[in-house]
Amino acid sequence: MAPIPQSNVDVLIVGAGPAGLMLALWLSRLGVVTRIIDKRTDKVFSGQADGLASLDKMTFSPTKLCFRFQARSLEILDSFGIGDRVWKEANQMFEVSFWNPNPDGRIQRNSRVSNNVAGLSRFTECVLHQGRMEKFFLDGIAASYPHPATPTHQIKVERMVIPTSLSIDETRVDDEDAYPLTITLQNLTEEEATPTQRLSNLSDGLFRSNLANDDIPQMIENSGGRKDVREEIIRAKYVVGCDGAHSWTRKNLGKDFEMHGEMTDYIWGVLDIVPITNFPDIRNRCMIHSESSGSLMIIPRENKMVRLYIQLTEVSPNGGRIDRSLITQEAIFKAAQKIISPYKLDYHYCDWWTAYQIGQRVGDKFDKLNRVFLAGDAVHTHSPKAGQGMNVSMQDTYNLGWKLGLVCKKVLRREVLSTYELERKQIAKELIAFDHKFSRLFSGRPAKDILDETGVSMEEFSNAFNMSHLFTSGLGVNYQPSPLVSKPAEHRIVKTDLEVKADQVAAYDSAQSTLYLAKNCIPGMRFPSFQVIAHSSAQHWQLHHKMPSDGRFRLVVFSGDISQPTRQSLVNDLGSWLSTDLLPKYPTIALSPGSEPHAGTMKFMPDRSPSIIDVLLIHTAKRSDVEMLRDLHHVYHPFDPKLGWDYDKVFVDEESYHHGNGRAYEGYGVDPEEGALVIVRPDGYVGLLASLERKGWEEVAKWFRGVLRTV
Amino acid sequence: MAPIPQSNVDVLIVGAGPAGLMLALWLSRLGVVTRIIDKRTDKVFSGQADGLASLDKMTFSPTKLCFRFQARSLEILDSFGIGDRVWKEANQMFEVSFWNPNPDGRIQRNSRVSNNVAGLSRFTECVLHQGRMEKFFLDGIAASYPHPATPTHQIKVERMVIPTSLSIDETRVDDEDAYPLTITLQNLTEEEATPTQRLSNLSDGLFRSNLANDDIPQMIENSGGRKDVREEIIRAKYVVGCDGAHSWTRKNLGKDFEMHGEMTDYIWGVLDIVPITNFPDIRNRCMIHSESSGSLMIIPRENKMVRLYIQLTEVSPNGGRIDRSLITQEAIFKAAQKIISPYKLDYHYCDWWTAYQIGQRVGDKFDKLNRVFLAGDAVHTHSPKAGQGMNVSMQDTYNLGWKLGLVCKKVLRREVLSTYELERKQIAKELIAFDHKFSRLFSGRPAKDILDETGVSMEEFSNAFNMSHLFTSGLGVNYQPSPLVSKPAEHRIVKTDLEVKADQVAAYDSAQSTLYLAKNCIPGMRFPSFQVIAHSSAQHWQLHHKMPSDGRFRLVVFSGDISQPTRQSLVNDLGSWLSTDLLPKYPTIALSPGSEPHAGTMKFMPDRSPSIIDVLLIHTAKRSDVEMLRDLHHVYHPFDPKLGWDYDKVFVDEESYHHGNGRAYEGYGVDPEEGALVIVRPDGYVGLLASLERKGWEEVAKWFRGVLRTV
Repeated sequence: MAPIPQSNVDVLIVGAGPAGLMLALWLSRLGVVTRIIDKRTDKVFSGQADGLASLDKMTFSPTKLCFRFQARSLEILDSFGIGDRVWKEANQMFEVSFWNPNPDGRIQRNSRVSNNVAGLSRFTECVLHQGRMEKFFLDGIAASYPHPATPTHQIKVERMVIPTSLSIDETRVDDEDAYPLTITLQNLTEEEATPTQRLSNLSDGLFRSNLANDDIPQMIENSGGRKDVREEIIRAKYVVGCDGAHSWTRKNLGKDFEMHGEMTDYIWGVLDIVPITNFPDIRNRCMIHSESSGSLMIIPRENKMVRLYIQLTEVSPNGGRIDRSLITQEAIFKAAQKIISPYKLDYHYCDWWTAYQIGQRVGDKFDKLNRVFLAGDAVHTHSPKAGQGMNVSMQDTYNLGWKLGLVCKKVLRREVLSTYELERKQIAKELIAFDHKFSRLFSGRPAKDILDETGVSMEEFSNAFNMSHLFTSGLGVNYQPSPLVSKPAEHRIVKTDLEVKADQVAAYDSAQSTLYLAKNCIPGMRFPSFQVIAHSSAQHWQLHHKMPSDGRFRLVVFSGDISQPTRQSLVNDLGSWLSTDLLPKYPTIALSPGSEPHAGTMKFMPDRSPSIIDVLLIHTAKRSDVEMLRDLHHVYHPFDPKLGWDYDKVFVDEESYHHGNGRAYEGYGVDPEEGALVIVRPDGYVGLLASLERKGWEEVAKWFRGVLRTV
Repeated sequence: MAPIPQSNVDVLIVGAGPAGLMLALWLSRLGVVTRIIDKRTDKVFSGQADGLASLDKMTFSPTKLCFRFQARSLEILDSFGIGDRVWKEANQMFEVSFWNPNPDGRIQRNSRVSNNVAGLSRFTECVLHQGRMEKFFLDGIAASYPHPATPTHQIKVERMVIPTSLSIDETRVDDEDAYPLTITLQNLTEEEATPTQRLSNLSDGLFRSNLANDDIPQMIENSGGRKDVREEIIRAKYVVGCDGAHSWTRKNLGKDFEMHGEMTDYIWGVLDIVPITNFPDIRNRCMIHSESSGSLMIIPRENKMVRLYIQLTEVSPNGGRIDRSLITQEAIFKAAQKIISPYKLDYHYCDWWTAYQIGQRVGDKFDKLNRVFLAGDAVHTHSPKAGQGMNVSMQDTYNLGWKLGLVCKKVLRREVLSTYELERKQIAKELIAFDHKFSRLFSGRPAKDILDETGVSMEEFSNAFNMSHLFTSGLGVNYQPSPLVSKPAEHRIVKTDLEVKADQVAAYDSAQSTLYLAKNCIPGMRFPSFQVIAHSSAQHWQLHHKMPSDGRFRLVVFSGDISQPTRQSLVNDLGSWLSTDLLPKYPTIALSPGSEPHAGTMKFMPDRSPSIIDVLLIHTAKRSDVEMLRDLHHVYHPFDPKLGWDYDKVFVDEESYHHGNGRAYEGYGVDPEEGALVIVRPDGYVGLLASLERKGWEEVAKWFRGVLRTV
C-alpha cells in the first residue's frame, strides 16, 4: 500500500459556501498557502445560470439557492472587483409593499415605502442566483494570480473531500512557525458523496434545509467498507470551519462549542417560480399578512423569477418531529394561493423549492486557541427570510481573512486574532435577536383590533421593518474597542452574555481617537465612500475604489487647502515623517494582480513591494493651484523605477466635469480648516481618528505599534 | 482530387476588424446565416491583455492597437450588453490641456478644459486596448446563442482565409430568394498568412500602418505554387467588405470604386509606453505645440500606459517615397523628448509603436447593386489622431447590420438598403473634412504673433477643438430625409459632391413628422436616453437599456398623465388600434438570448415571437394612481402563456428612490399636456415624431408602410 501523502498548508478551509469562498478569496489576494475542501459533489446548476432555462422542464437541482445581497456585502465584493458583476445581473429591490387584511378579511395594500435608506451606500439590496455568485468568487480567486497562472499554490476548490480527524498540538500553538494542527482528509467517490436521501428522491426540496439531517456520518459510513479509500494528512497553521449548521469542525472541538438556542413551531416553505398572476405588486418586495391563512413574503428576482416565502400553517411540529411527507411543492404552492387570494397565482416554471423551521442558535466560542475558527452557519443559524445568512457568513470571513493572512505573512501581531470572536460574536447575537423578533412578528396572526392581544399589530410590524434597515443593510455594524478600533472604553457594548475579550489583548487602549475630527467616520464602523476627483486626471472616483481589499492599511490624510503655504508645509512635514519614521518600521507587502480591481484588466505590478500602509491624500485646494509633483512630498506620489510616479494617491473634493459634486468633506464630516487623519483597516473599518497636527502623528504611530510587527 | 466544397450563406463578411465584428454581432442577434473571414494569422496578444505585462520584456506585437471610444460608440456597444465592460476597463478622459510656446519658446500650459460636452450622453470619451474590444465582440456574438450552443449557424471568425474571386449574377440581384454572388475562398497556411516583411523584422511597427504595402497579392502568390491549396466556393446573398484601406473587395468592384483624396507631407509616429516623466499633465489628454520641433498629443490609457502621437518633422516624403528606415522606435521617441523638453521623458516599457502619413481619402460608391457593400477603412481613410476611425467604421456596419439582417428575414423592404450609402457617405465626407482641417491645424507651426501668417494661431486651434466635440462624440450624426427618416425635404444636407439617393427610394416622403412635439428628438439623430422609473418595480433605468439592439423598431408613447380619464381612454384606444390594426400587419421576430442584455444572465425566452414593433409607454401620472394590469390596455403589458404578463414596458417620469429625477419629458422636449409618439429605428435613430391623437396614428401607419413588408 502506498504511504499516506502528507503536506503543510498555512490555512485549511473546510466548506466552500459563501463564508469559505470569501476566505479563500482574501487568502488568494494575500498569497497565503491555502487549501479549501468541500464534501459536496452537487455542482450548482450553472449551465442554466449561464444560458437559457427550458420552460418546459423543471430543471430541479437541490442547490439552486438564491442570495440576497446587503449593501455592505456589495461594497465588500466590489473591493475585490466582483461587486459590479453581481450588481449588473441581480434584481435590485427599491420598494416594499405591506398588504394586510381589510375589515372584510381581504388583503389590501396598506403602504408602499422605500426598501432602503437613501444615501447610506452606493448599493441597495438585490437578489441573485447562487450559481452566479460562486462563479464570481472563483473568477475573483483566479484573478489573484498572474496569467498564465503558474504558481504551485493557486487556490482551487477541492470537492468530494471530507475531514475525518482533527488534532491540536497545544504545546505549539504559540509558536508562529509551527503547524500545530493535524487533519486527515478522505476523498469520496461520486456515489459516496451523494446521500441516499438525494438518490431516492431527486426532487426533494428539503435536502439541505434545516429539516434535513447531517449527512457526513453517512458519507463516512458509506466509504468505510471500501478497501481503496484515499486518505491524506495535512499539517496546518490554521483551520477554519465554514461547514454549515451541521459543522463537522465544530463538533470536533467538543462540548464547549455546542450551539444554544431554540426552534419555534413556525414552518415556512420557499418557492422560486416565474409567476403568472394578476397580483399587482409581484415585482415589488411584499409583506403579506392574510387574515388567517398565514403570511407571505415576495422577493422579485433577476429576470422574470420571483421567490415566495410562504408560511405553512397546516404543518406544525407540535413539539415533536415534523412529518416531512406533508411538505411538498404542491402543498407549499397551495398555501401561497390561499394567502394571496382573491388574486390568482399560477406558474409554469418552478426553479426550486424547500422548507424550513424557524429557529435561532448561536455558539459561545468562535475559535479554539486562535488556531481553529468557526464562521457562518457553523456558529449561528436563523431563518433565511430576513436575507441575512449569506451576508453575515461572508462578513465573518471578511473579518477573519486579512487577520489570518497578515499573521501568516508575519505582518500582524498574532494576538490580534482574538478580535475575530470579539467582533463577530456580537454581530451574530444581534442577528439572532433581530431574527427572533422579526420572524415572530411576521409569522404571527394579524391583530383584529387594538383589543386583540394575541394578534400582531400591523403597525408594530411595519415600524419594526422600517427600523431594521440600518441593521439589514449591514452598514450598522459597529465593532467594539480593541487595538484595531481605537475609541473610548465606554463605547463598549456590554451584553450580559457576551465575554468581552478586549482586555486580554495587549496594549488595547494605547492610541486615542479624537472623535469630532471626522464626525461620520466612527471607529469600528465601515469608512464610508464619497466621490472625489483624481488630482492628476480629473476623473471622478468613489473613494472606496481606491481602497481595494489588497491587505493594506490606509492612512487617509484629510489635508484641507494645501494651496495655503502653512498647510502645504504641514502636509509635507507629515510626508517626511511618514517616509522617514513610520513606514520604514513596518513590512512591505507583495501585491497580487487582483489587488487593483478597478484599474482595468492589463496590469503592471510595481517593481518594489509597497508599504503595508497606503497613504491617500484628499485635499480641498483648487486643482489648478497645486502641481502634484512639484508641490507635494513624494510619499503622496511614490516613485517606481520602472513605472514612474504613482498618480493615483492624491484626490480633490470638488465638482467633477460630468458627475456632480461628491462633497466628500461634508460626507465624512471633516472640517477643511482642521483636517484629520483616519486609519482604515484592510477590511474598510475605521481604526483611528487623529489630528493632522504633530500630536495626531503620535497617535497614528501608537496605533500601528499595537497592531503590526516591526521589521 | 476532392471536389471543391460549395455552400450558401446569407451574408459573407470579409475582414474581422471593428467594422466586420460589429456586423457579425448584429447578424448573430438577428439569427442570419453569416460567415466572417479574415486574412490575418496574427492574433492580438490577448494573453497579456488578460494578465500581467512583464516590465522587463517588450512584448511587441504588430497588432496591439488601442482604441478610442466615442460616447456614441459606447451607447451602441451598451445596446448589445458589452458597453459596460469597455467602460469599466477603459481609461476615461475628462480633461484636455493645451500647451503652447511662451514668448521664450518654452512650452507652457495655456488652458485646461473639459474633454467632453456635459449632459450629451451618459458616456464620455475613453481608451482601451484592441485585444479587449475583440474579446468583448466575440463574447457578445457567443451570447446571441442558447447555451450550450447547438445551432449549426453560430458565427465564428474564420482566420487565415482570403477571397480570391467575386462575381455577381446581375440578372438575379432583384430576386429576394436568390444567391447572386459567387465567391471563391482560399485557406492559407500559417506561413503563407505571415508576410515576409513581418518575418524579417519582428519589431517593425510600420506593419499595418498606411506606410505599408498591401499584403494580399503576396499571400496569393505565396500559396500559388502549393499543390494542396484548399479552396471553397460560397454563394451569398450579400457580401460586405470590411477589409481595410487596401480592401480586396473594393478593388474587385472595379474603377468606379476607387477612393479619392490626397496625402500630405506630415508624418507622425505613435508610441504606447509607461512613461517616466515629470511633465505634470501626463494623465490628461494634452495638445502640445512646440515652437519648432513639431506637435505632440498625449492620450492617457488604461492602467499606467500613455499613447503619444508625435510629429516627425525630420522625416518628410518631399513629394516622393518615404525612407522607412528613418522611422524607428528610437527616432520617434527622440522626437517626443524634443517636443516635451524641458520636461524629462523616459520609459522602461514600450507596448507598441508605429508611424503614418497624414492623408484623407473617400470612395464615391459604398455599394454595388445593393448586393456588395463597403464599410470602414475600405471606403474612407484619414489620420488616426482624431480617434474617429474605429468609431466611424463600427457605426458604418451598425447602420448596415439591421437593414441587411431584416431584409434577409423578409421583414424590411429591400429598397431600404439604399439608405446605407445615403446615410453613411455623408458621415464619411464630414469625417474627412474634419480630419483635413484638424490635422493641418495640429501639424502646423505655431504662429509667433498676429503678423505671422504662415503659422497656426493657437486660438484658432483651440476653438476648432472645442467646436468639434459634438462631431467627435458621434452624437452629432444627423441622417438625411428618407423613408427611414421622416422630416421636411429642406432638412436635406445637399453637398455639391454628394449624390442624394433619397429620391430614388420609393414612397420616401409619405409620412410627416410634427417636429415640435419632442423638441430634443430630431428625426435622423439618435434618440437620447434619460432615466425613467419602471412602473412595476420602482427601479430606475436608462431608457436606452429598454431599447436593446434586438432588431425591433420601437414606438415610444409619451402619454402624459394617464390618471386623467380622457387621457387614459385615448391611450387605451391607441392600444386597441395598435393590437388590432397595426401590429398584426407586420411580422414577428424571434429574439435571441442576447437580446435582453440588461436583464441578467439567466434568460427565459418568450413562448411566442413578439411583433417587430415594440411598444413602450412613458407616462407622467403618479405611480400609485395607476394600476398597470387593471387600467392599461394589454398591448402595454403583453401576456405570454408561460411567462405571464410583461412588466417591463411601462415607465414613469418621476423621482427615483435613490437616484435622483431623470426629468425625461424635459430631456426629450415633450409637453406632458400634449404627449407624442416617436418611432425609433432598430439602430436607435429617430424615424418619426407624431401626435398622440388619431391623426398621429395615421402617420405611424404610413411610416411603417414605407419601410416594412406586410405578412
